[in-house]
Amino acid sequence: MQGDLRVDEALNFLLVGDLVGVAVFAASGASAAVAKRLDLFGVALVGFVAALGGGILRDLVIGAVPPLAFADWRYAVTAVLASIAVFWLHPQLNRLRRTVLLLDAAGLGLFTVTGTLKALDAGVPPVGACLIGMLTAIGGGLARDLLTGEIPVVLQRDIYAIVALGGAILVTIMREIGLSGPGPMALGAVLITGLRLLALYRRWSAPIAVP
Amino acid sequence: MQGDLRVDEALNFLLVGDLVGVAVFAASGASAAVAKRLDLFGVALVGFVAALGGGILRDLVIGAVPPLAFADWRYAVTAVLASIAVFWLHPQLNRLRRTVLLLDAAGLGLFTVTGTLKALDAGVPPVGACLIGMLTAIGGGLARDLLTGEIPVVLQRDIYAIVALGGAILVTIMREIGLSGPGPMALGAVLITGLRLLALYRRWSAPIAVP
Amino acid sequence: MQGDLRVDEALNFLLVGDLVGVAVFAASGASAAVAKRLDLFGVALVGFVAALGGGILRDLVIGAVPPLAFADWRYAVTAVLASIAVFWLHPQLNRLRRTVLLLDAAGLGLFTVTGTLKALDAGVPPVGACLIGMLTAIGGGLARDLLTGEIPVVLQRDIYAIVALGGAILVTIMREIGLSGPGPMALGAVLITGLRLLALYRRWSAPIAVP
Repeated sequence: MQGDLRVDEALNFLLVGDLVGVAVFAASGASAAVAKRLDLFGVALVGFVAALGGGILRDLVIGAVPPLAFADWRYAVTAVLASIAVFWLHPQLNRLRRTVLLLDAAGLGLFTVTGTLKALDAGVPPVGACLIGMLTAIGGGLARDLLTGEIPVVLQRDIYAIVALGGAILVTIMREIGLSGPGPMALGAVLITGLRLLALYRRWSAPIAVP
Repeated sequence: MQGDLRVDEALNFLLVGDLVGVAVFAASGASAAVAKRLDLFGVALVGFVAALGGGILRDLVIGAVPPLAFADWRYAVTAVLASIAVFWLHPQLNRLRRTVLLLDAAGLGLFTVTGTLKALDAGVPPVGACLIGMLTAIGGGLARDLLTGEIPVVLQRDIYAIVALGGAILVTIMREIGLSGPGPMALGAVLITGLRLLALYRRWSAPIAVP
Repeated sequence: MQGDLRVDEALNFLLVGDLVGVAVFAASGASAAVAKRLDLFGVALVGFVAALGGGILRDLVIGAVPPLAFADWRYAVTAVLASIAVFWLHPQLNRLRRTVLLLDAAGLGLFTVTGTLKALDAGVPPVGACLIGMLTAIGGGLARDLLTGEIPVVLQRDIYAIVALGGAILVTIMREIGLSGPGPMALGAVLITGLRLLALYRRWSAPIAVP
């Protein structure tokens, strides 16, 4: 139906999707830092890394240097503002726990789509592009947990990484069959987000090795 | 005696050496993840990072983007299959502890050789190429330990990193004097592996600072 | 007054500044590793990462591969010699705690200046260059703390990262108005170092979020 890529629109979609994801993941990093009693600058730094770590890794492996996080000031400013907002507002955020989980799922969907598309556009083969899409989505959370001294939650709460990987495969197939316009891709992000929320709601979990 | 580099053979040697190393290190990462009670996907992810983290770092610093781990699907598939195998077979693996140590030593030898050669081929000067060869060999284990919340064992069980560094220096000298064919390099990998096993067997250790 | 850049002098300034910073940060990493009872090679490795991790990250994001740490043998040798010196001399170093803090502040000033200048020279826009300058200065310390199993001190002792960020902004402005010669830049490094020492002396600290 759609399929034809209007370049400006597509770029805008990537940018807006990215920035919303940045704000959401910065908020998740800042929340973790506040919980560890880090001060204002520690909170901003963990928020920055949680929001932009996945994208920096993505840009390094596809050879897009300097990474967007450094080339476009809007990324860093979005991450820092979202972190500072959490620093001041976090008591209210506790009451908004559901909202945070919803936003985190949205960030997962958005980063998976933009990460996979960027890797494919850079000429990475499909399997690699799917891995890069997944790492873009989970990389920031990994870095956040390492910085705050935790075993990464993504390694334990598995129906997170696997949703990102499944979403990256979906995006790759959609692009292969020509459905790479903003509309279909937005739909892909919504699907990934929905699957993550369903996994949360139904408490889906993966097997643990028998001892 | 040999010294003349038949390119196809050399490439095949690098590929097979790399993939065996990938499987072995994936198994070591997956074992650590199983021990931490991570679930199937966490085990696969730690296995992936342990197997491919060193090579990704190597490719980033020599400017080979996208890194092989993403450019060639056989790397990721090998790492994930080896991790899943450990997930299902790990009770048997406990009885195979000696085999695992042997395979880990083989991985150390193989990654040191391929990492150092790739760095030299990319035009990195000798000292840097030796460091890159060592980091290729120990990088995955470092990442594995960081992800599972441990102080990296390579920092404590020193006769590991230093064997890799010594091996990288040997490879650099061999290449300098023209012994860079598959045969001599396979011999180099065997020497490094043997030295590591000797260090294990003799319980060699390095000095700790006097308090 | 000055402003005209004599290239050789400037390069020498960058090199000497970098190497002094490398030695200082290697010493800080080695001290942390000695305190964790790591052995000689673990101490050398943590010293290497603490000294060169920030610069490797900087070179990767500005696309300067292989990073200086691998391209120029003087960097690695300086880091390893400084680490070994700490390994042997550390009981005396305890009495030199003030000296270590002074040197660490000097390293902060030097790395901020060289990191920011290199990013600007590579064509990174101002906001990104300031972030890269700051990350160059704090990246090694971050890696040191992750390797030794600590929550990074830079996230808690905030008047460290923010001094680097302020210094990077100062360097960017100075370069914009033509004050990019060795003299003004050395002055910038002294200012950043002085501010860090003042923050230590006055025990400045940043706010923590209200619970």
